Amino acid sequence: MAVVLTRNSYGKSRVRLTKVTHQADFHELIEWNVAIQLEGDFIPAYTVGDNRKVIATDTMKNTVYILARDHSPSNPESFAVLLADHFLNRYPQVSVADIHIEVQGWERISVAGQPHPHAFVGQGPEQRVARAKISRTKRTLIGGIETLYILKTTDSAFRDFHRDEFRTLPDCDDRIFATEMNAEWTYTSTSVDANTHHERIRRTLLETFAGHQSLGVQHTLNAMGTATLEACEAIDEITLTMPNRHRIPFNLTPFGRDNPNQIFIATDEPHGLITGTLRRKP
Amino acid sequence: MAVVLTRNSYGKSRVRLTKVTHQADFHELIEWNVAIQLEGDFIPAYTVGDNRKVIATDTMKNTVYILARDHSPSNPESFAVLLADHFLNRYPQVSVADIHIEVQGWERISVAGQPHPHAFVGQGPEQRVARAKISRTKRTLIGGIETLYILKTTDSAFRDFHRDEFRTLPDCDDRIFATEMNAEWTYTSTSVDANTHHERIRRTLLETFAGHQSLGVQHTLNAMGTATLEACEAIDEITLTMPNRHRIPFNLTPFGRDNPNQIFIATDEPHGLITGTLRRKP
Amino acid sequence: MAVVLTRNSYGKSRVRLTKVTHQADFHELIEWNVAIQLEGDFIPAYTVGDNRKVIATDTMKNTVYILARDHSPSNPESFAVLLADHFLNRYPQVSVADIHIEVQGWERISVAGQPHPHAFVGQGPEQRVARAKISRTKRTLIGGIETLYILKTTDSAFRDFHRDEFRTLPDCDDRIFATEMNAEWTYTSTSVDANTHHERIRRTLLETFAGHQSLGVQHTLNAMGTATLEACEAIDEITLTMPNRHRIPFNLTPFGRDNPNQIFIATDEPHGLITGTLRRKP
Amino acid sequence: MAVVLTRNSYGKSRVRLTKVTHQADFHELIEWNVAIQLEGDFIPAYTVGDNRKVIATDTMKNTVYILARDHSPSNPESFAVLLADHFLNRYPQVSVADIHIEVQGWERISVAGQPHPHAFVGQGPEQRVARAKISRTKRTLIGGIETLYILKTTDSAFRDFHRDEFRTLPDCDDRIFATEMNAEWTYTSTSVDANTHHERIRRTLLETFAGHQSLGVQHTLNAMGTATLEACEAIDEITLTMPNRHRIPFNLTPFGRDNPNQIFIATDEPHGLITGTLRRKP
Repeated sequence: MAVVLTRNSYGKSRVRLTKVTHQADFHELIEWNVAIQLEGDFIPAYTVGDNRKVIATDTMKNTVYILARDHSPSNPESFAVLLADHFLNRYPQVSVADIHIEVQGWERISVAGQPHPHAFVGQGPEQRVARAKISRTKRTLIGGIETLYILKTTDSAFRDFHRDEFRTLPDCDDRIFATEMNAEWTYTSTSVDANTHHERIRRTLLETFAGHQSLGVQHTLNAMGTATLEACEAIDEITLTMPNRHRIPFNLTPFGRDNPNQIFIATDEPHGLITGTLRRKP
Repeated sequence: MAVVLTRNSYGKSRVRLTKVTHQADFHELIEWNVAIQLEGDFIPAYTVGDNRKVIATDTMKNTVYILARDHSPSNPESFAVLLADHFLNRYPQVSVADIHIEVQGWERISVAGQPHPHAFVGQGPEQRVARAKISRTKRTLIGGIETLYILKTTDSAFRDFHRDEFRTLPDCDDRIFATEMNAEWTYTSTSVDANTHHERIRRTLLETFAGHQSLGVQHTLNAMGTATLEACEAIDEITLTMPNRHRIPFNLTPFGRDNPNQIFIATDEPHGLITGTLRRKP
Repeated sequence: MAVVLTRNSYGKSRVRLTKVTHQADFHELIEWNVAIQLEGDFIPAYTVGDNRKVIATDTMKNTVYILARDHSPSNPESFAVLLADHFLNRYPQVSVADIHIEVQGWERISVAGQPHPHAFVGQGPEQRVARAKISRTKRTLIGGIETLYILKTTDSAFRDFHRDEFRTLPDCDDRIFATEMNAEWTYTSTSVDANTHHERIRRTLLETFAGHQSLGVQHTLNAMGTATLEACEAIDEITLTMPNRHRIPFNLTPFGRDNPNQIFIATDEPHGLITGTLRRKP
Repeated sequence: MAVVLTRNSYGKSRVRLTKVTHQADFHELIEWNVAIQLEGDFIPAYTVGDNRKVIATDTMKNTVYILARDHSPSNPESFAVLLADHFLNRYPQVSVADIHIEVQGWERISVAGQPHPHAFVGQGPEQRVARAKISRTKRTLIGGIETLYILKTTDSAFRDFHRDEFRTLPDCDDRIFATEMNAEWTYTSTSVDANTHHERIRRTLLETFAGHQSLGVQHTLNAMGTATLEACEAIDEITLTMPNRHRIPFNLTPFGRDNPNQIFIATDEPHGLITGTLRRKP
């Protein structure tokens, strides 16, 4: 029987880079978790164990630290592009370089109201992510936010949905809306001022979520994506994924008490999962 | 500015089903973690909050338990197909139903050498998974194994790979090969004897891994995929993903000792990540 | 053979409480993860299955939600005391009630520079914790912080430690100091203004960490604990636990480059783990 | 103000050791995750940064690999004792050495029905653990099992527990009993045949769980501990911790169906948590 290898890629994941830049009066800190995947002329390594064109994943790891030393990446998006271009330019056997970076956020510790020059406190669980997927013919740059916990205690309804004999959930005019938003957006170019755009997009997502009169998770997701595309011309597509982390009203009736939307059970499972991709209309 | 919703889906995740079947002399136990995603005519829910065609994710959850009651699913693959067909058949607004099931494995406790009729011990971290993605025009059934820890202490080399100034890793003729294999394969039909196929595929993957003279992770991955397609006619494609969980020889030279491939540091990060998809040649 | 039950306790864990308080112009939100453990006259439940004095853990769960409804807890410390006292006062068979609360932090989303009245963004991974352990004769209230990521890029040395033939680590005058601090402190009373104390203690810990000329993790731990006891008279003991999340300089010499304390590998394992308890001298 | 350091310890955690022993016809494999904590004359490191007596945690890590090279530890209990004794014997400043080891289980892959000489498949989530805590005056050896998932589908009741106005849980004569058991037991000596005892204790715990007519988690916990002390004279104390991972009957009444103990919702939170320590009566 004949078998064919129809798709393959390989690389290094969880390359954890810390870079400190010593300025005159203060230090700058970045901590990025880098993953690299390459596609290209690697089939002989699979079929007959011929590794001559294989760049060791250990070499990829070295490359991350060397390029971080040689350059001054100001944001993860540009470093992802730098790395992807490096692999394509140096190795003719590579056809696609796909770089993914997760940012560990750090803020300066405030001492007597002033930001400290070299001491930091970690941020989370929200994480900025960047991805550059670059081939010989196509360049894609993606920015994103993962695990942004957002919650609103009102201005959220879910009613008049499909009714059949398997439905037991009643209509609800006022419920808690809680999610761990993941967003990723595609830049129109691989050379953008990503820090500025990231900040604007993040603010737009948060403000739209806060202000929306929600008729459902889908409804708010669409409003958030639309507002983002309107606010940032540097992107042409956004995908939002929003698990519905239900807060279920606790039934206090057996205990002779009412519950005017005050007391809830927070749950992680089961959870709704709603996703959508919006694009600028051509 | 005009924005268009180009892709959307929604559903319920982490619906945790336990079913006990009472036979005359013993109980059968299944514990499955079910996720449902639907695509279809749901755009008005996003754009204007019109939920009339929206099947609540809570209703989807109910459906899992109701169908588990009404039927006697003998394996997760057939239950995934049953659920997918249910959503397509009952709701004309649904165009695609995508069901994913993770199996919590349980084995009978052995008491005095005999399997106990109703007491079980949990298995892991290996997990059987099944996925049915069914549309009005296409039916796909996928089986898989996640997080299968496998390790061999010899018959594994990695040498003669690309050499340049960023390479520091030396050639190695005898190293530990450790991975957490993920595999998924596509059945040629949605009505198959999945339990039998799963067992044969699992055994083929393990035996091929054990016996292979590996020249690299890619080389072994290809051998495992090829052997599986040869062993099981009921599938026509398999994707294997194999992180390279490096075991690094500990350098004992500073302590006046040699290390003849005996003492290693086990690491999780950074790790190589190798993937490939193999198909039967048409 | 005779066996005796020398210690026992039981309770409910991971009771996830959400409470929304509707003020005239804004909503207040708390999300607490509550765990309860009781000790007392429960031996017959163990030895002969006599459950008559056993308060079901389900009842404990109900109690959390009911007391959250009936009272207006302004901080997790006072709610922990309220719950502990409830179990002791209502159930004569209880001798010790041990309540532990983890706080999910939420901050108001900023919209046009103003805090939003009912939309929130989640904070982490830092977590405020509170514990009340109350018996018929002793009342203990503990506050704490878990998983506070802190890092300084200089003012940290580790040198002149014990030298023997198993030591390979060189002296270092300038290294990164990174940890995930856990702290817990004991209040001198169970009725304190915990919000004010918590804020002051947190600020003292951060500022002391930032400003310390560290000669080792132990040295900084001791300074942080001492400063906290000096800053807050309402506590008389503090325990700090500080894993040493090493940042290892990446060796760039093989690549013809120097590394003037700029490029590091972030690691999670292996890690140092340093702990100490400080008390006010009597 | 005067502050005193009342307790301190430090060490290295997550030292991940792999050792391969090459026998004539097969390889033996151990993978252990080692944690070390030392107490002793280390106060000056805390108070004034005097590190002269401090054994670097990096040196502790080296020690694990060196001792694994120099000796042939046949089980984690004896290696924990070996390490503890090493730190006490070599360093007069150490007063207590506390070693904790977690075992990653590996079984040989079966090929054509035969165990393979050098290929292994990982086991889990159950984990064997060992702990040696040795001081100048006292030697303690602890064995244990963590995260043993066990479940029985019948022979489990919970009824006649305390009734009051906060109770809503009804009596139940037949429910699922599911837990993730943690056990630790104290050996009467630090030189025991731990492999044999571990196997017997594990079998006793499983068989007792399976065969017990449970009137509650406490009741079964007590029976399991008692049976273990009776089965193994080499231990004199055992502590069992058993979260109650509730399986909640799904209410099928709204859908016109009954549920004769067949269909359940598996849950992780909230969960009961029951613990007890049993000793041989003096």
